[in-house]
Amino acid sequence: MHRVKVRVVEDALDANNTIARANRDDFDRAGVYVVNLMSAPGAGKTTLLERVLGPLEGVRAAVLEGDVQGSLDADRLASLHVPVVQLNTGNGFGGECHLDANMVRSALPSLPLEDIDLLIIENVGNLVCPAEFRVGEDTRIMVSSVAEGEDKPLKYPLMFRACELVVINKLDLLPHVDFDMDKLRHNIRSVNPDAEIMEVSARTGEGVEGLRNWLVEAADRAAAPA
Amino acid sequence: MHRVKVRVVEDALDANNTIARANRDDFDRAGVYVVNLMSAPGAGKTTLLERVLGPLEGVRAAVLEGDVQGSLDADRLASLHVPVVQLNTGNGFGGECHLDANMVRSALPSLPLEDIDLLIIENVGNLVCPAEFRVGEDTRIMVSSVAEGEDKPLKYPLMFRACELVVINKLDLLPHVDFDMDKLRHNIRSVNPDAEIMEVSARTGEGVEGLRNWLVEAADRAAAPA
Repeated sequence: MHRVKVRVVEDALDANNTIARANRDDFDRAGVYVVNLMSAPGAGKTTLLERVLGPLEGVRAAVLEGDVQGSLDADRLASLHVPVVQLNTGNGFGGECHLDANMVRSALPSLPLEDIDLLIIENVGNLVCPAEFRVGEDTRIMVSSVAEGEDKPLKYPLMFRACELVVINKLDLLPHVDFDMDKLRHNIRSVNPDAEIMEVSARTGEGVEGLRNWLVEAADRAAAPA
Repeated sequence: MHRVKVRVVEDALDANNTIARANRDDFDRAGVYVVNLMSAPGAGKTTLLERVLGPLEGVRAAVLEGDVQGSLDADRLASLHVPVVQLNTGNGFGGECHLDANMVRSALPSLPLEDIDLLIIENVGNLVCPAEFRVGEDTRIMVSSVAEGEDKPLKYPLMFRACELVVINKLDLLPHVDFDMDKLRHNIRSVNPDAEIMEVSARTGEGVEGLRNWLVEAADRAAAPA
């Protein structure tokens, strides 16, 4: 059973990469910088986007919101007056635990690509499968909350390895949890020595300016003529 | 692509159910009550087990520890002097984001089924796929941390619907997070009106006695002659 299963997964990943490249071509043609934003459920991706996306100086952003079901997060972000498109993996995509390139492709006609510079794709909350499926993004950012403990990079190494930037969120909870920041940083480095690491509190706003600047600079770089 | 994919998933679920029934027969024959314990990454399953499993009056417990990679949780639990078997989905199982019946079956020879009354299967941290794969368990318990927010039942309804008991963990963080307990309870009820709900703090031990009693009573009921 498992041999067959693994073969099917590999075929699916090949097919996924082909579609991801097509997405990437469309994004590049429209001059849109694309972030695949990933985390465990409840790490605070949406709250972070609420903080970051309002005042993005000079950069026109949109969000593609991935969930198994519902549009709770999209509804929250809609008040920011940025274009938000909801993509549910439960509608015709088998309730998948991750976004894949084909799902994102199906949402492209709903996205105003010609009118934006930055697209944030908020993936399904999951530390395993989203890391395996490229969707056409330029970069991958993951959010890890201090409430989740320091051991997550060692238990979900593929996710931490897949990311260019790890945003450690919920700094405001540090006094109230048994958590060792140095240990988390050490564990991130042990699986991904090149990852940038940023500490923020989406709740208080601490450190959020750094993430905002990171996004603006990345989008600017992508838009600059080579 | 998606039609094919969905068909394969359905076939796999059928095959999984057949093996889950075989596991269940083996558990029943040995008189072992089996809990499939699920949650998002970092919700506190292992800390909860550390609190619960030491002093389980009259019930001999063992743990089957599921992770993508590593044995961090199994190592933590080993100090409790209960049998702990590590099952990695990364070893020959394609790095799956959930346990399935066949993986659990492969671990049965390592488990002292004749010498235990209660087996806790700690699933991979994930709120999507573990709910789709029965492994031969008698019951499913999920842990939801107050740090994850109140919206999770609406975003991951299958998981909350699959469980007999929802344990709300990290009560000690309540004063420090924007969290409405009534709203979470309402959201759980809206997707699973029959679920039992329990509030605990694995960190302080608050409410843990209730979970311990629940497990002891369930194991006793299962062991009683019909």
